[in-house]
Amino acid sequence: MPYPEELQRLVERELDGLEFSPEPATARLVEAMRYSLLAGGKRIRPVLALATARAIGRNERDMLPLAAGIELIHTYSLIHDDLPAMDDDDMRRGRPTAHKAYGEDVAILAGDGLYAEAFRHILTHQQGEPRAILDAMRELATATGVDGMVGGQYMDVAGEQADAEDLRRLHELKTGRLIGASVECVLLINGMTRSDTSDFCEFAAELGVLFQIVDDILDVTGTDAALGKPQGSDERHGKRTYVSEFGLDGARELAERSHRQARASLLAAVPNGAPELEQITDFIATRSS
Amino acid sequence: MPYPEELQRLVERELDGLEFSPEPATARLVEAMRYSLLAGGKRIRPVLALATARAIGRNERDMLPLAAGIELIHTYSLIHDDLPAMDDDDMRRGRPTAHKAYGEDVAILAGDGLYAEAFRHILTHQQGEPRAILDAMRELATATGVDGMVGGQYMDVAGEQADAEDLRRLHELKTGRLIGASVECVLLINGMTRSDTSDFCEFAAELGVLFQIVDDILDVTGTDAALGKPQGSDERHGKRTYVSEFGLDGARELAERSHRQARASLLAAVPNGAPELEQITDFIATRSS
Repeated sequence: MPYPEELQRLVERELDGLEFSPEPATARLVEAMRYSLLAGGKRIRPVLALATARAIGRNERDMLPLAAGIELIHTYSLIHDDLPAMDDDDMRRGRPTAHKAYGEDVAILAGDGLYAEAFRHILTHQQGEPRAILDAMRELATATGVDGMVGGQYMDVAGEQADAEDLRRLHELKTGRLIGASVECVLLINGMTRSDTSDFCEFAAELGVLFQIVDDILDVTGTDAALGKPQGSDERHGKRTYVSEFGLDGARELAERSHRQARASLLAAVPNGAPELEQITDFIATRSS
Repeated sequence: MPYPEELQRLVERELDGLEFSPEPATARLVEAMRYSLLAGGKRIRPVLALATARAIGRNERDMLPLAAGIELIHTYSLIHDDLPAMDDDDMRRGRPTAHKAYGEDVAILAGDGLYAEAFRHILTHQQGEPRAILDAMRELATATGVDGMVGGQYMDVAGEQADAEDLRRLHELKTGRLIGASVECVLLINGMTRSDTSDFCEFAAELGVLFQIVDDILDVTGTDAALGKPQGSDERHGKRTYVSEFGLDGARELAERSHRQARASLLAAVPNGAPELEQITDFIATRSS
């Protein structure tokens, strides 16, 4: 499946150029942050941000600080999710997780540091109207707080999902809000208001749902090598997933429906077509890792 | 010692009014955040922010969103510092620490959530010129990232302080930068530039130093009841402190010198006097808990 690799390379270069701090006394902390940040991956969220810029006729390079910041936040969330007190995962993207490589204390602080440095990087380097940047930063803070990523992770570790509606809500918060923010922040920085962007927001929200259904399917059908971590970990953790709720065939059907819905919302948002956003959508639907 | 209790009450009311999220599924996470946030304390950082507003002739109430956000960040740092993988402290302000009361997973997420909600709260409610608010937020992110609080905490857990200079640097990062930001962000939001504010910045930096020297002295001389945690924990953790470096009398002398220096910088910054900032300075120098 084609993927906008040109945009992925731009992101990779921006991330690799981040230095965080010249202070020798914190060099090992910075090393742990870079170890987790530069472990590869498709960079779906920042690539989505750059592709959104293209879809609205802007230069994607102008959004690189925001895009990099979003990937820093995503990396922070992975480090904290993997901790012994959370999912207790030893492997991530085919390598030891941060706490396995650097110790639990350093891993907690590497996550904390990445989150702070995300805000610092965007606030230092992102160009745009100050009011528009403030709007985007507020969206990003909300998407990653109690009504977003952190709240979703809490629901996940607390196992407080009683039914399919709770499961949907959990993933909307834990995964969907940051994926959504990757689109919405670009629109906000470029001066678009919420009423201009409702089709885009629907697209972004559906993309988050699609991402999670496919994630749950892959946890059952993927191989350890492709996933970069042990397959079947959801079941071992007793997690409620789209597969445990609807069966494998049911989950696949939901994924197909979500894929169609995402494509339809995207077409409504960008009637003339947005090739990179279409590629990302199809990639998320058909990925094998 | 007089303390600007009127400002402290304003802060307390603002903090108590924070609701974070109406979502029932994350109610226990929000409870853990509020448990740590509303455990009392002198609220030195936010009170310092409000007192700074007064010192430059502004209405302190206009700075309440910023002040509250700073206390959220301070609370997040305490929760993460207390974790088993870090300082492993069971008591804080006379009550079980967050991970003792709510579990380690919830405590990590309560800290993460407080940091996000700090940015969200300030970005949603703080009034001011957008560019000035952006400047203040950048300062706050920097003061709490790798070149600030998180970097200092890393130095602390890694035990990477070889000499008194490293010790000074550790505390400048871990404690001083957020205390400094409590002053500087108020100046930035009110449109003052770095060149207008160098005396203020010296004052704020010295206040951070003074705070830490007194903290180290109290860890040796304080009582469990007054401190709200077991006395002598620095020594048990084998931490390098101002007392271990310079002895108790030496540390007291350093504290007195730092106190005089802070008062002198404050007088240079506000020649007509700033009663609340003077009170906070004297309080920090003479506090018993």
